[in-house]
Amino acid sequence: MAEVEEVRNKQVLLGDYVNGFPKETDMFLSTKTIQLKVPEGSRAVLVKNLYLSCDPYMRNRMTKPDGEPSIGDSFKPGSTITGYGVAKVLDSGDPDFKTGDLVWGITGWEEYSLIDTKHESLFKIHHTDIPLSFYTGILGMPGMTAYAGFYEVCSPKRGENVLISAASGGVGQLVGQFAKLMGCYVVGSAGSKEKVDLLKNKLGFDEAFNYKEEHDLDAALKRYFPRGIDIYFENVGGKMLDAVLLNMRPHGRIAACGMISQYNLPQPEGVHNLFCLITNRIRMQGFVVFDYFHLYPRFLEFVLPNIRQGKIVYVEDKAVGLESAPAALAGLFSGRNVGKQVVVVARG
Amino acid sequence: MAEVEEVRNKQVLLGDYVNGFPKETDMFLSTKTIQLKVPEGSRAVLVKNLYLSCDPYMRNRMTKPDGEPSIGDSFKPGSTITGYGVAKVLDSGDPDFKTGDLVWGITGWEEYSLIDTKHESLFKIHHTDIPLSFYTGILGMPGMTAYAGFYEVCSPKRGENVLISAASGGVGQLVGQFAKLMGCYVVGSAGSKEKVDLLKNKLGFDEAFNYKEEHDLDAALKRYFPRGIDIYFENVGGKMLDAVLLNMRPHGRIAACGMISQYNLPQPEGVHNLFCLITNRIRMQGFVVFDYFHLYPRFLEFVLPNIRQGKIVYVEDKAVGLESAPAALAGLFSGRNVGKQVVVVARG
Repeated sequence: MAEVEEVRNKQVLLGDYVNGFPKETDMFLSTKTIQLKVPEGSRAVLVKNLYLSCDPYMRNRMTKPDGEPSIGDSFKPGSTITGYGVAKVLDSGDPDFKTGDLVWGITGWEEYSLIDTKHESLFKIHHTDIPLSFYTGILGMPGMTAYAGFYEVCSPKRGENVLISAASGGVGQLVGQFAKLMGCYVVGSAGSKEKVDLLKNKLGFDEAFNYKEEHDLDAALKRYFPRGIDIYFENVGGKMLDAVLLNMRPHGRIAACGMISQYNLPQPEGVHNLFCLITNRIRMQGFVVFDYFHLYPRFLEFVLPNIRQGKIVYVEDKAVGLESAPAALAGLFSGRNVGKQVVVVARG
Repeated sequence: MAEVEEVRNKQVLLGDYVNGFPKETDMFLSTKTIQLKVPEGSRAVLVKNLYLSCDPYMRNRMTKPDGEPSIGDSFKPGSTITGYGVAKVLDSGDPDFKTGDLVWGITGWEEYSLIDTKHESLFKIHHTDIPLSFYTGILGMPGMTAYAGFYEVCSPKRGENVLISAASGGVGQLVGQFAKLMGCYVVGSAGSKEKVDLLKNKLGFDEAFNYKEEHDLDAALKRYFPRGIDIYFENVGGKMLDAVLLNMRPHGRIAACGMISQYNLPQPEGVHNLFCLITNRIRMQGFVVFDYFHLYPRFLEFVLPNIRQGKIVYVEDKAVGLESAPAALAGLFSGRNVGKQVVVVARG
């Protein structure tokens, strides 16, 4: 039998389950070795990871399971973090993939991963004129989230008034641009002056505000939406949702995508204004992108020309090196990132 | 000019705006006189009121307006309470109605009312083999509410698991029976043993429980819905909603019809488990029956044969005499009524 090359494989592992805000030190680096070959008879795919995606939903996978509904299983303490990423196939036991293919999908937070394609769907990357890192964002899970959330859940109509929270994030910045393409009036909420400037000057939002500087969110919303909100794309939950409920127009829609303001609290905040759902006949609908991945080909047809023609832009915040991944993920929850948070593991 | 007959007209008026639970003494009786003739040139309709409907939404009209969204304007202190009722036309300036017609719609809490049909839609009663009082309930606004809420908002499917709160009330008892006709598993929550017995023994619910005897609503729901809830018909809000959110099945639906547990609180309770909307892809939709009255003819075609064949029954709680109306309305909020609360003003 031929000797199989074995290399060092740096990894990011979860320490213990996380309470409260995740810290860089909740994760740790470790090095194992890995054979750069798929085991004999396996249908798995061995990849070299290039870009990793930091996404808010990952916080929920760091919590000790408590039997309540959750999206995805919790990571196990001492095991490798997993998440969306872009990778290059080094070896494949799956006839759908071959050495040299570029792919995106769920991979490990490590230099090399052996991916079981029976359990995790990998998407082959066919369009490489676009930056590869975009497949962690606009062309990956966050892009599909924005697309499905806006077009499938929000039922948007031309000229409607749209509010997006966490608006400069990996999903929010796209929802705003999709809404502008539809001729909507679009306002974004974000957590710093830099993000507000980005929304207004680079991402084409009509208005944006820093929620941290608004003592009265209800008053802020009334200022930006004197006639009320038709569509709220919900990424934050809590106080913002409560204020939004007071400002929805009749027959408005709330697409509940995430509630990042709540993930690190011991108990979620109470939302008091739900009766407004009735008075204004509001539809509030939670959704998870997994249910919409069958739309991915249609999404690419829509979004690729828009990217190539510069009609949609995408702002990334790149942390370089696997070592920087724990701080990059933790930083999502203090709002440190400006734009979609990506970790560059290798350039190719 | 002929002398026009003038008679005494007993009325129920609102005292001051109501804070907290409404009391019988928040309303008062007064007597005026009224001419039993429509004023010359007016297109109004003069009616003798027969049955008045006590409905939870009326509580919200007793609150001082605060600029927040509401259903219908507030009653003015010192003015006659208005609400749904059944009446007989004594005189009409509207060519669509003639003396002797029976009608249902918004009328005054008084013996005789002059109704402006330009602003309030009156429905003519064509089927009098059914008890007339039913037009305040199953054949009136609550019936339409149950019909639209269940069939149009809940998107029910055969065999689904359905929970209804305030289940023995004017709307809830119908939703449960509609769901049973569709082959659903139906559980009702109510506030007394008598109501629980009614749900199980007369209204055909599969199960029912007294929420006042459940210290842990989450545990109670897990007992009745070990596999989770597909449809929640929401009449109460607050703690029940919070517990339900933990027990919804993927792609479940919540039709938000009312939140009676919240109407008398200085501030609505906080609802903490909204993140479950996302994890389980729940659609929560508020609705108001006014948007569905165009379906009334279709509703009658559906419900009348079911009533006549005894496949749907309707439980009323009748208070006799206009004097009893204030206590009957206040009683809704302590759960005193068993079944739909009606006030009998006159028998014909």
